[in-house]
Amino acid sequence: MGEKMGNLRRTDMCGNLRLDDVGREVILMGWVQRQRNLGSLIFVDLRDTSGITQVVFDDTISKEIFKKAEKIRSEYVLAVRGKVRKRESVNNEIPTGKIEILADTLKILDESETPPIYIKDGDEVSEAMRLKYRYLDLRKPSMQKKLKMRHKAAKIIRDFLDENNFVEIETPMLTKPTPEGARDYLVPSRINAGKFYALPQSPQLMKQLLMVSGMDRYYQIVRCFRDEDLRANRQPEFTQVDMEMSFVDIEDVIEVNERLLKRLFKELKGVDITIPIQRMTYKEAMNRFGSDKPDLRFGFEIRDISDLVGNSSFKVFKNTIDNNGQVRGINVDGHEGDFSRKDISKLEEYIKTFGAKGLAWIKITKEEISSPIAKFLSKEELDNIIERMNGKAGDLLLFVADKENIVLDSLGNLRVEIAKKLNVIDKDDLKLLWITEFPLFEWSEEEKRYVSKHHPFTHPMDEDIDLLETQPEKVRAKAYDIVINGDEMGGGSIRINDSDLQERMFKALGFTMEEAWNKFGFLLEAFKYGTPPHGGLAYGFDRLMMLLTESDNIKDVIAFPKTQSATCLLTDAPTEVSEKQLEEVHIKVNLK
Amino acid sequence: MGEKMGNLRRTDMCGNLRLDDVGREVILMGWVQRQRNLGSLIFVDLRDTSGITQVVFDDTISKEIFKKAEKIRSEYVLAVRGKVRKRESVNNEIPTGKIEILADTLKILDESETPPIYIKDGDEVSEAMRLKYRYLDLRKPSMQKKLKMRHKAAKIIRDFLDENNFVEIETPMLTKPTPEGARDYLVPSRINAGKFYALPQSPQLMKQLLMVSGMDRYYQIVRCFRDEDLRANRQPEFTQVDMEMSFVDIEDVIEVNERLLKRLFKELKGVDITIPIQRMTYKEAMNRFGSDKPDLRFGFEIRDISDLVGNSSFKVFKNTIDNNGQVRGINVDGHEGDFSRKDISKLEEYIKTFGAKGLAWIKITKEEISSPIAKFLSKEELDNIIERMNGKAGDLLLFVADKENIVLDSLGNLRVEIAKKLNVIDKDDLKLLWITEFPLFEWSEEEKRYVSKHHPFTHPMDEDIDLLETQPEKVRAKAYDIVINGDEMGGGSIRINDSDLQERMFKALGFTMEEAWNKFGFLLEAFKYGTPPHGGLAYGFDRLMMLLTESDNIKDVIAFPKTQSATCLLTDAPTEVSEKQLEEVHIKVNLK
Repeated sequence: MGEKMGNLRRTDMCGNLRLDDVGREVILMGWVQRQRNLGSLIFVDLRDTSGITQVVFDDTISKEIFKKAEKIRSEYVLAVRGKVRKRESVNNEIPTGKIEILADTLKILDESETPPIYIKDGDEVSEAMRLKYRYLDLRKPSMQKKLKMRHKAAKIIRDFLDENNFVEIETPMLTKPTPEGARDYLVPSRINAGKFYALPQSPQLMKQLLMVSGMDRYYQIVRCFRDEDLRANRQPEFTQVDMEMSFVDIEDVIEVNERLLKRLFKELKGVDITIPIQRMTYKEAMNRFGSDKPDLRFGFEIRDISDLVGNSSFKVFKNTIDNNGQVRGINVDGHEGDFSRKDISKLEEYIKTFGAKGLAWIKITKEEISSPIAKFLSKEELDNIIERMNGKAGDLLLFVADKENIVLDSLGNLRVEIAKKLNVIDKDDLKLLWITEFPLFEWSEEEKRYVSKHHPFTHPMDEDIDLLETQPEKVRAKAYDIVINGDEMGGGSIRINDSDLQERMFKALGFTMEEAWNKFGFLLEAFKYGTPPHGGLAYGFDRLMMLLTESDNIKDVIAFPKTQSATCLLTDAPTEVSEKQLEEVHIKVNLK
Repeated sequence: MGEKMGNLRRTDMCGNLRLDDVGREVILMGWVQRQRNLGSLIFVDLRDTSGITQVVFDDTISKEIFKKAEKIRSEYVLAVRGKVRKRESVNNEIPTGKIEILADTLKILDESETPPIYIKDGDEVSEAMRLKYRYLDLRKPSMQKKLKMRHKAAKIIRDFLDENNFVEIETPMLTKPTPEGARDYLVPSRINAGKFYALPQSPQLMKQLLMVSGMDRYYQIVRCFRDEDLRANRQPEFTQVDMEMSFVDIEDVIEVNERLLKRLFKELKGVDITIPIQRMTYKEAMNRFGSDKPDLRFGFEIRDISDLVGNSSFKVFKNTIDNNGQVRGINVDGHEGDFSRKDISKLEEYIKTFGAKGLAWIKITKEEISSPIAKFLSKEELDNIIERMNGKAGDLLLFVADKENIVLDSLGNLRVEIAKKLNVIDKDDLKLLWITEFPLFEWSEEEKRYVSKHHPFTHPMDEDIDLLETQPEKVRAKAYDIVINGDEMGGGSIRINDSDLQERMFKALGFTMEEAWNKFGFLLEAFKYGTPPHGGLAYGFDRLMMLLTESDNIKDVIAFPKTQSATCLLTDAPTEVSEKQLEEVHIKVNLK
């Protein structure tokens, strides 16, 4: 039931008209934000992706058109022609608020039923409704802005990488299933009955092959897939900014990425970040922040008091130390008064989710030191602890005694939890950080062997290579993550380009060369024919866009995201398919 | 067995050094194209992605390094430091041929076994070997150049679309299986047992939803998937340059795309194309060239002689006309002497593959008219035919008599076949052409109903709308293809944004509204809430790159292509997977 545009062609966007345009005849097209009928005057707020302009219908227009304007409802699609004029009652809340259009022509290009959600930022509506009517949700100015910022960020990144001689190369989506790592999405082959492709978890192997190909510098903004149980801010398909460089070591990869990040923050946000970006070893990050992605926007650093309490008469501490455990704490400095005993009990419950058994505390007020453990500590012990923790009047000290990993994990999470509770994080602050010198391996209790922390092609640090056979747990990797405000935004490594070293690596991982060839044969074959030193990095683009658009929800930076159960509420994917379709690809459903 | 770069950092690329650089100390890194050992002198051609430089080792270097240089074989990866000096025997075949590097330091970063294929353009090696050792194949300068041109083309396209207010928006890869059209690649869901995603055949519906979302102008360079039997130059996954615009009609989409093509050809190839680009209706293209993607680089146009032979005593012609068939021909002008009777027999065999029953011919020489059908034609008929065909001495006239579609298909293919045989196509010529006014429907013998030639959302031409119910076969669509040198490079249409018209469209397709809702419910639901007039276009990016890189084989413009049987010879995808993996996604292999 829509009219045709006919010869009308849009001359301007709704958000761009200003006082300078007064007197011009313009043609606007867009959606009706609202219509107000004052009897002899009708006002229409017309919206397009650029903004809103007020359109007026009065008695200078034909009765027929006026009648049409009376019919207009929210979200109708209009074409309006008219003259820009100065507005009597200025609206300072919108950039076009000083002008309006006196309409002389109106076409209703399409009507609209009453939309099930309001086209208004900040409207309280369930996520399910937002996703089902995503095309209406995306009409909101904030959502349009976020998608446009995503476009612009990708453009800035591409421009930068192009200038720096990176070549965008598309890698396959129908790839070989991977023998280990996260779960693949499988795609049955029709032509090759009984065989399957996998959707790529990342283009890792292909980009390394491109370096073997002599392509020198590769990048791609590329969709990746992991069929894992979805936590908040995880999507089954996600986008990586992926790059790889030849003839480089750590410093080279970091250098180019620091310039990239500087450009991105400057052009997209107008924010100057300082380069070189601060660096911290994995070990230091774990010791000070209990995390390999510490948020440096606040303090509450972890301090070790193990050496002070080994002989304490407080059994919990003493026994922990006797069993090779540790006692560490954080000083929630200045916030003693913000935590009641009940609040502290809640914090204790919180850290128990990370395996801690309890939370010891000391409150220091002007008058006294209050603590359930004080009575078990000697004066000297208490003084030493307070000194080590930099304790002063007004501080709350919190301690965990356990195995090192539980202590660090508990306190690392606790400091973030407390900072959020206290609202001490400056939202405008931006703390970028490289984490370096990751361990090359981690011990897998399940498999009873060392497994790669990154992947088996990660280069060990040169000075640690000789520990591969003797003390693999001490070998550090040429791996690095970029962390911003406590979130890992990307990571990468220098790869092994030496077949002897690669073989030692596989041995350390407990693979025979035969097993290694079964798993990674085509890459090992490629490495026989002259492999340059190479390395790279990949950013999680969705996460980066969450940061850049200040979004809490990953779904806000993806046009058509999926739910936590990996469904699309808009299209109803996934769905059942016909037996014929299944037969064609040689599979059956197996619901047992 | 490789040395480390240590502190060596590349200062220059191998292809960039010139006489101006003489005297500079440089560090180059790359692969050995070849090594020549003259006893007291060793020459190494060092190659990277930019080109080749000659490196010399002589007695000014330590014995130890000279010994190392003696070991060098083809495809070893080196780091070389040395001074640029003027070369005695200039090599004019390479841009660096006036200089060489006198090495003072050498590191062998990696060794290489003898590669199974030569790293040399034009080397005759089987496609299977090229694909299995793709990383070596990609070392060839021509392949590097093609991938770089692809990168550059994408960059030019993105820059242009960004300047023209298109927003790049990523659409999902895990989508809803489509009820009709080409075969989907299916992806079983683990979380939603028994249900399946499909990989997108194109983002058609999602981009229309983005227009409903008010995004105004969308684009994406996006991977698409079709599980169809693979013909030459088809790949199971392919890349589209996809775009959609709101508040537009045909002219607007064509206008912006002409500017895009002009920019692309100019910046990538230095070629000026004239805009506006020539246009031709579908009807004219079929009548004159027997194809909706005519190659205009040569003549041999089709002419209709049906009206001249309806009463002919040549039964084949007369019977065809009596049965509502047609007789049409082409004039292979000037090439009478190039075709023996045997050659013409071969052409006849060729057109039989398109359903034609035979090929009638008339040769006009200076002396005579030679034709097996001449004796059945009256003098007047023969004269009229020759006149209609613009026949003159030296011409060969070829005719097919059959149903219209067989006549056009046969002659359309024949003219291309002949042009290729005669080598009359100027490779440097570039003929761009819009084909417009496609039929909206085509009759499906299989389904005994009209089906959409494009898709059911294609807008009919305004003046044909009232034929929807009465003469659907006469309704033309607001659809357009861009054809370059006889290949369809892209196509698109204006979409229906009016629910009444959409309903009439579905009726014409033989769907009840219930069926239509079952198939396209979420799009029809979206269309209820204010849909702008919109339309778009998508290019086949791989095909476009074939044209732009002058490649005959689509595999040459894709880094890691698949074979005709949809396998990857490099990684061996697809492969069998474990029972556990299948169970997790609730499927079984069904090989019956």
